[in-house]
Amino acid sequence: MCLALELSKTISKYILTNILLTMSSISDFNEYRQRMNEVILSGDNKVIKRFFSLDNQTYEDGALSEVTKELLGLVASMVLRCDDCIKYHLGRCYELGVTKEQIYEASSVALIVGGSIFIPHMRRAAEYWEELEKME
Amino acid sequence: MCLALELSKTISKYILTNILLTMSSISDFNEYRQRMNEVILSGDNKVIKRFFSLDNQTYEDGALSEVTKELLGLVASMVLRCDDCIKYHLGRCYELGVTKEQIYEASSVALIVGGSIFIPHMRRAAEYWEELEKME
Amino acid sequence: MCLALELSKTISKYILTNILLTMSSISDFNEYRQRMNEVILSGDNKVIKRFFSLDNQTYEDGALSEVTKELLGLVASMVLRCDDCIKYHLGRCYELGVTKEQIYEASSVALIVGGSIFIPHMRRAAEYWEELEKME
Amino acid sequence: MCLALELSKTISKYILTNILLTMSSISDFNEYRQRMNEVILSGDNKVIKRFFSLDNQTYEDGALSEVTKELLGLVASMVLRCDDCIKYHLGRCYELGVTKEQIYEASSVALIVGGSIFIPHMRRAAEYWEELEKME
Amino acid sequence: MCLALELSKTISKYILTNILLTMSSISDFNEYRQRMNEVILSGDNKVIKRFFSLDNQTYEDGALSEVTKELLGLVASMVLRCDDCIKYHLGRCYELGVTKEQIYEASSVALIVGGSIFIPHMRRAAEYWEELEKME
Amino acid sequence: MCLALELSKTISKYILTNILLTMSSISDFNEYRQRMNEVILSGDNKVIKRFFSLDNQTYEDGALSEVTKELLGLVASMVLRCDDCIKYHLGRCYELGVTKEQIYEASSVALIVGGSIFIPHMRRAAEYWEELEKME
Repeated sequence: MCLALELSKTISKYILTNILLTMSSISDFNEYRQRMNEVILSGDNKVIKRFFSLDNQTYEDGALSEVTKELLGLVASMVLRCDDCIKYHLGRCYELGVTKEQIYEASSVALIVGGSIFIPHMRRAAEYWEELEKME
Repeated sequence: MCLALELSKTISKYILTNILLTMSSISDFNEYRQRMNEVILSGDNKVIKRFFSLDNQTYEDGALSEVTKELLGLVASMVLRCDDCIKYHLGRCYELGVTKEQIYEASSVALIVGGSIFIPHMRRAAEYWEELEKME
Repeated sequence: MCLALELSKTISKYILTNILLTMSSISDFNEYRQRMNEVILSGDNKVIKRFFSLDNQTYEDGALSEVTKELLGLVASMVLRCDDCIKYHLGRCYELGVTKEQIYEASSVALIVGGSIFIPHMRRAAEYWEELEKME
Repeated sequence: MCLALELSKTISKYILTNILLTMSSISDFNEYRQRMNEVILSGDNKVIKRFFSLDNQTYEDGALSEVTKELLGLVASMVLRCDDCIKYHLGRCYELGVTKEQIYEASSVALIVGGSIFIPHMRRAAEYWEELEKME
Repeated sequence: MCLALELSKTISKYILTNILLTMSSISDFNEYRQRMNEVILSGDNKVIKRFFSLDNQTYEDGALSEVTKELLGLVASMVLRCDDCIKYHLGRCYELGVTKEQIYEASSVALIVGGSIFIPHMRRAAEYWEELEKME
Repeated sequence: MCLALELSKTISKYILTNILLTMSSISDFNEYRQRMNEVILSGDNKVIKRFFSLDNQTYEDGALSEVTKELLGLVASMVLRCDDCIKYHLGRCYELGVTKEQIYEASSVALIVGGSIFIPHMRRAAEYWEELEKME
């Protein structure tokens, strides 16, 4: 019985840890992102490596502030409907102190420019923002 | 042993109810949609709220029938390749009595206009339509 | 002097007939479309030729009427923002007796689904519809 | 001879004023935009009219400044590759005192997010910005 | 106890076989693709059936080799950001002996043309390619 | 009279040289492209400059030949429906000795993947290819 119980516990723990959280959690999103970026960079393709480095450079402070640039990246990701890109920029905005009201105003621009087709992505963005706020 | 059995049953019920059905089932799709719409609307952004209300208004009977407009919304969602939007309009079409043959003809327009890139979405649309038909 | 006047007249006629009207007129749009389709088909690529024939077949009467299918093709073209495709389907809709009110309702679906990004195309669509109405 | 000369001058003036400038000039862009918006609104479709009014509301000062929102609208238009939308937001940014350096930084975000496919639109945007600067 | 153990084993096997692997594995991807294609074709829509047959024909050897055409289909799927289409063409490329270096160079073209918005899809493509290599 | 005639001739030459050819000709396309690239690069934005240099690097010989990469760039531009990008890659393909049959096969892949929405761009591509062939 002990064995069966142990096995059941292991299964239940496995489900809770690995399956349920896989898609939604912030750390898992970041971990997958990190791990696969390393796989890609280890492919040793010069153009791809330079693009990745250029991508980071793009959001640095300049004539526009880092916050403004992250918001630009966020809205660009929203109208192009890329969930992972939206999550990434939401995470960066959260770190930089952007407020929920500002995120919703940025989302309203994406909604008007991009149309109702953006709504399902707005749902997932709102959910992710809630997770970011709960994390504290 | 009873306990282990009970636990196993709970796990198995949990799997069947919550995991397997999470992504695919009609009620879960609607529930998530409803819940996150409420989260978004509680954000109290005027532009977003007015857009949501305008969105509902768009498909009302007028010079074109509600059925025709739902089909237009469906094909627009198909060529823009938005799975959740497709599901929503499939659900509305089903409620309004659109037949499977009509859905497939609408899909054929989306396929010709939008190309083979639409096929993976057509697979998920066909699966969802089967679920709608089984629901009865 | 007569010669200069004649030449000037010829130039002015040329401008009015060939340049000003080139882009906007219905007949010129159809003529270019027809001519280049022939060039493409003369390229004798089997896949392209079969696609062209399949494209025509798509809008034939079936479980959905030809009018409904043309409206589906129109809205698909609108949200994908293809001016020439929009013009083609507007021309077909006009021939099939679709009213201006119906075109505007179809456009409103495209506007809500596709967002403000559709507006410049809606302007050109409205202009082309006016030309179709003036043609009579 | 006077007549021929006059006619020739008229033609040459006509070419310079109406043809050459038609596509590129700021006033002509605005005039066409204004005129066709009126045609569309006279179509008296409620959803379209409300969308137009909502569109204006979107860029008003709020949790984000009007300038930031115009930049968001600009970059959204850039990655969705809508020349007329880009022109409109460039015009608004210019009126609000956005600098050339800021426009180029916003463009760099659009370029990285949207790829080389944005470059032809960046050319036309750069040309339009030059025209805005010359207008003074 | 035997029963509980058996049940637990069944559950654990079920999880490992059907849930965990559902999304990621090559065989499951192919199985779902195959099954839903059959559902779609059983819908008996002529346009859809002819499109499917035309789709297969497109990648046959001709003036361009099958390998080149699969690479073209891959990059087209990449810039249009269709994960399932990418997986399909990766599978075909793998069968035809395309190397990892070639896949990464094709990906670099998609990245430059399509922008950083392609990166999340590149992560999933790199993961799928690793699975294809492990399969041996 | 001589003056009027001269003026008329100048106008007619102007029309033929500058207006009629502006949009369609190969040299004008390349000239505008070159000139605006210089304007953009003079804006002295580091990210944009590095992207331009990276863009050139992308199509160099490597694990895939330059020809294959230009074809990949061509089809990517086709499904993303960017006329100027298509023209650029058609020009490069022509220089590298790609045949008309190969261009049409590449186009057939773009047509199947991207749908009928690509057809208007295929017309302009076919016209541009004819111009490239006439140039010799």
